[in-house]
Amino acid sequence: MKQRYFEDLKIGDRFQSNAYLVTQDGILAFAREFDPQVFHLDPASAKETMFEGLVASGWHTAAISMRLFVRTMHVLGGIIGLGVDELRWPNPVRPDDVLTVETEIVDLRASRSKPSYGIVRLRNITKNQRDEIVQTMLASALVPKHSYKDIVSQLPMKHK
Amino acid sequence: MKQRYFEDLKIGDRFQSNAYLVTQDGILAFAREFDPQVFHLDPASAKETMFEGLVASGWHTAAISMRLFVRTMHVLGGIIGLGVDELRWPNPVRPDDVLTVETEIVDLRASRSKPSYGIVRLRNITKNQRDEIVQTMLASALVPKHSYKDIVSQLPMKHK
Repeated sequence: MKQRYFEDLKIGDRFQSNAYLVTQDGILAFAREFDPQVFHLDPASAKETMFEGLVASGWHTAAISMRLFVRTMHVLGGIIGLGVDELRWPNPVRPDDVLTVETEIVDLRASRSKPSYGIVRLRNITKNQRDEIVQTMLASALVPKHSYKDIVSQLPMKHK
Repeated sequence: MKQRYFEDLKIGDRFQSNAYLVTQDGILAFAREFDPQVFHLDPASAKETMFEGLVASGWHTAAISMRLFVRTMHVLGGIIGLGVDELRWPNPVRPDDVLTVETEIVDLRASRSKPSYGIVRLRNITKNQRDEIVQTMLASALVPKHSYKDIVSQLPMKHK
């Protein structure tokens, strides 16, 4: 797929990611490493909590959403996160949920300090297979301009 | 260590986490799964980017910060994230950095919809071994009240 640059984006553009299957093993592995709480760690005990079953850490949902977003956008040279606001988890993510991310470009402006980058303001909405919203956020990120291409064209892009 | 409940917290309370060593292998593993971009994936190519070397995904820093925060707070029944604002990454995290999290309780109020929980507003600041700030955030979370103890006292807390 064609790589994107800052100049390729327009306010109002929308992008739809591929799908990601959340597994129970994935939920447990993330929780053991990063969010060791009972409702993320132990399916039996989680039944006795407010969630009435195992749920993914919100940070796991955020990480999965980043994966889907990065693979959708295809930005050569990378998307560099500056900050996130209004990160919310209105519904839990459970084993066997299938997540997708919708991205909307909210604003575009030049970067004064980094002339080879533009600043993109975007909204990401993560939904499950029942079209329920499991995460929303508003983010700002640096995206390379087309002029950046010359700088990185010799880079070995091992991350394909 | 003694478990904490909502009633144990006061506005202005501060907590300091243990330390977490960030490894190159950890940065690469997280990036491959969740943030496959060149400056998180490949030490050699990362030298040619704006970061001039390998850096951790911001979502990896957020996940490590959650781990440190959860283990500091010792909240029986768990801390349930409602939302995060003003998530920023003012400095990059690099291999061999040692991170700690400082938590400040900013506000406390009752939950109308869930009477056995209180809502905690808190600020988490993540620093490296040079006292540089690598992440800041403001978060809201549900924390069980002491009355919740009876409900969960029989739970096997396998996540210790």
